[in-house]
Amino acid sequence: MTSDPISVLIWNENVDETRKPEVRAVYPDGIHGALAKAFERDGRFAVKTATMDEEECGLSEDALVGCDVLMWWSHHAHEAVPDTIVERVRRHVLDGMGLIVLHSAFMSKIFKALMGTSCELKWRNAGEKERLWVVAPGHPIVEGLGERIELAQEEMYGEPFDVPPPDELVFVSWFQGGEVFRSGCCYRRGRGRVFYFRPGHGTYPTYWNPQVQTTLRNAALWAARRAARIDGPPTRFGQHAPLEPLG
Amino acid sequence: MTSDPISVLIWNENVDETRKPEVRAVYPDGIHGALAKAFERDGRFAVKTATMDEEECGLSEDALVGCDVLMWWSHHAHEAVPDTIVERVRRHVLDGMGLIVLHSAFMSKIFKALMGTSCELKWRNAGEKERLWVVAPGHPIVEGLGERIELAQEEMYGEPFDVPPPDELVFVSWFQGGEVFRSGCCYRRGRGRVFYFRPGHGTYPTYWNPQVQTTLRNAALWAARRAARIDGPPTRFGQHAPLEPLG
Amino acid sequence: MTSDPISVLIWNENVDETRKPEVRAVYPDGIHGALAKAFERDGRFAVKTATMDEEECGLSEDALVGCDVLMWWSHHAHEAVPDTIVERVRRHVLDGMGLIVLHSAFMSKIFKALMGTSCELKWRNAGEKERLWVVAPGHPIVEGLGERIELAQEEMYGEPFDVPPPDELVFVSWFQGGEVFRSGCCYRRGRGRVFYFRPGHGTYPTYWNPQVQTTLRNAALWAARRAARIDGPPTRFGQHAPLEPLG
Amino acid sequence: MTSDPISVLIWNENVDETRKPEVRAVYPDGIHGALAKAFERDGRFAVKTATMDEEECGLSEDALVGCDVLMWWSHHAHEAVPDTIVERVRRHVLDGMGLIVLHSAFMSKIFKALMGTSCELKWRNAGEKERLWVVAPGHPIVEGLGERIELAQEEMYGEPFDVPPPDELVFVSWFQGGEVFRSGCCYRRGRGRVFYFRPGHGTYPTYWNPQVQTTLRNAALWAARRAARIDGPPTRFGQHAPLEPLG
Repeated sequence: MTSDPISVLIWNENVDETRKPEVRAVYPDGIHGALAKAFERDGRFAVKTATMDEEECGLSEDALVGCDVLMWWSHHAHEAVPDTIVERVRRHVLDGMGLIVLHSAFMSKIFKALMGTSCELKWRNAGEKERLWVVAPGHPIVEGLGERIELAQEEMYGEPFDVPPPDELVFVSWFQGGEVFRSGCCYRRGRGRVFYFRPGHGTYPTYWNPQVQTTLRNAALWAARRAARIDGPPTRFGQHAPLEPLG
Repeated sequence: MTSDPISVLIWNENVDETRKPEVRAVYPDGIHGALAKAFERDGRFAVKTATMDEEECGLSEDALVGCDVLMWWSHHAHEAVPDTIVERVRRHVLDGMGLIVLHSAFMSKIFKALMGTSCELKWRNAGEKERLWVVAPGHPIVEGLGERIELAQEEMYGEPFDVPPPDELVFVSWFQGGEVFRSGCCYRRGRGRVFYFRPGHGTYPTYWNPQVQTTLRNAALWAARRAARIDGPPTRFGQHAPLEPLG
Repeated sequence: MTSDPISVLIWNENVDETRKPEVRAVYPDGIHGALAKAFERDGRFAVKTATMDEEECGLSEDALVGCDVLMWWSHHAHEAVPDTIVERVRRHVLDGMGLIVLHSAFMSKIFKALMGTSCELKWRNAGEKERLWVVAPGHPIVEGLGERIELAQEEMYGEPFDVPPPDELVFVSWFQGGEVFRSGCCYRRGRGRVFYFRPGHGTYPTYWNPQVQTTLRNAALWAARRAARIDGPPTRFGQHAPLEPLG
Repeated sequence: MTSDPISVLIWNENVDETRKPEVRAVYPDGIHGALAKAFERDGRFAVKTATMDEEECGLSEDALVGCDVLMWWSHHAHEAVPDTIVERVRRHVLDGMGLIVLHSAFMSKIFKALMGTSCELKWRNAGEKERLWVVAPGHPIVEGLGERIELAQEEMYGEPFDVPPPDELVFVSWFQGGEVFRSGCCYRRGRGRVFYFRPGHGTYPTYWNPQVQTTLRNAALWAARRAARIDGPPTRFGQHAPLEPLG
């Protein structure tokens, strides 16, 4: 509960935006640019962006040490992120950094590594209506949202979603075509927190939606790194424990 | 894993069937009669029924002692069940008896007492299509079902459903009118197991649906009382523990 | 995330302190007085106390409307709190008020009503050593604690503890005499949050322990009422939902 | 719920037994040999063993296709199992095969891959007393055990144990030297089930203990592969879903 702003790093592979005019039309500064806008005018956050074409994919040790929450969007280039960088991100999550995984990043290496499952699902891109219903009213991630988020057009993701049972389930999506999806899934892993948030296909203006932006800010507050840095070194795992005689 | 059949007691308030011709048309032997049919020809079960007009509502101590799973349907007469009988049922659940709570029994005294929350929800009876999607493939309650159950007409229940977060969530419903619902919720309470299963409005032939019947049989197997009776007296709660000196 | 202080109301039956010199020796201003001290000099909180001998047990509608977190200690007089007041507290929890239940209040009416189970356990008061191990490092309730809390003398509580599986388990206690206990249990109920924290027998100076006080402050921050009041009226449960035609 | 016996495959690296006389003294036929004895005279099971020196580590596709539950013990040679074999085992777990992970196999590649976390912990081998307390009475894994398992001498493992919060926690260990540990952890991953069971250091006769053997049999019944094989092909993840027009 420090008054320092929370450091948010928004990571985007930035591929669709450069190749597909219909994505660039919606997100002229890239999806990362639109996501950053959701945080920029809010004094609780200090926001940066990074993309895959930067050195070390923009995910150097220095970048992560100073990061309280990492937000991740990827679609085509999951495999282009080197394993050593994925492992570095995972280590930071287990040490307390928050991670928000967006939409098609359900197939990213980092999400699959943290979940341990295939993370597969059904999908259909038909521009159909999506309603994200709040199933955990009172949860900090849904503060200020009301009972649901409505998106006029989105890609559909359908169950079964092969992830571990979420520690907390906050949204369930309804799709016009007949499917449902667990759209907001919270996980605690190590000292860190992970939030998967479903919507965000590149050809729809989802990340400009005010309720979606509220959700992302709430999620960043919920996931942000906590005491690890101010408590001194974390309790080490894997240490040999001396026998402590009972008094 | 005894070869004795599992004792299933199906309890129904049996009010709609006697008052409403449209319910009697669907369930001429009562909802309990239709539910019993799902178990009768399966040698793994020994099934009985009970209704509210019986002595002690058909829920005497003797009836419950011999019961491995109690299935409960109620709608109009929740308040007519005396508190002493509700407390008796609750004690048996905590001692290991399974409880399957159906449809409108989300407002029964016994379900509210075991959940501790209001159990309220949204509803609309408009004969709309419901799809129950399996979100926990591999769970014993969905064995043999495939990816979903489809019901041509049902009453709608909508989120938020004010229950504790389920220990296991196995179904999520999609409704034609735009809502979703956590339709299959598993709880462990004391030594017992509780399963809430959503569909079953009295004017639709839901309990004649083969997939629904499979679900109910699976749920009975999952919820059935276990070792308590063969292990001798259960570990007592609330006992004074002697100080055991370390060797 | 308002900068208004969090309103903490500390409730104590205040019976042992008036009858037993050995409790008064440890807590001359009552257990509630000692608990209040943990919050008084921290600007994040505005603290009040209430005891059972006050009008409406100090738990009037007005008192609860203005309360973000209610802390509850009781031991002998659980049954003396009227059911209408218990129900009022429960309604406020489901509407978003936090509740922290301490030690022997595992047998309070309010805790049993919210859990739905017997809440029974084993116990032995032999002044033995207790170690509360953190099993969820990174959880906000354990910020600043290190790996464990050590109490030289406490009453023992032993498993099985007949509560629903906690939504989050943050402490497990080790006792010198040979038992273990799930000592820090988090629950979400309705829009509210409940935290059960085990230690605090009246004859031991547990609530003067700095780590225990840190835990209580952390728990109050975690449990505090959230958006309900600033969001306008909460989503109503139990409402009739109109059929919304699809576009 | 077929009457065919459950196929249990017990896998052991079989290194300590060949190198250390003090392990061979306790387990003359290897740890796998002792584990197999717990299943051999029980008609509900068909048991096989495999060790790392066999072709494909004894974990060929054929061996896993026919396996309902795989039990895994390893200590020194975690890294000697090739990644392709680990991935094959993981795929079978996600498809429905049960996995029981024993003691020092918390550091096996397969457990870490399925958990997604570091899985690290504290340890001390001082031959101290361990008590495994049942915290989930009524759970099928503890049927017939009573309130606890007591082991006169074991290696200590201490918290924090860096695993995801278990879907079900059934045992918590008390150690003479002052630590506790979540000793029986249940996970659902894909269509499969994973059980981690703590005790079993090679120099102590833990796997000859009748209560430990009961636990392992119970765990095999709980984890065993279910409908996948009799239901025909499982619901495919990752498929493209056709748009289904609403009636």
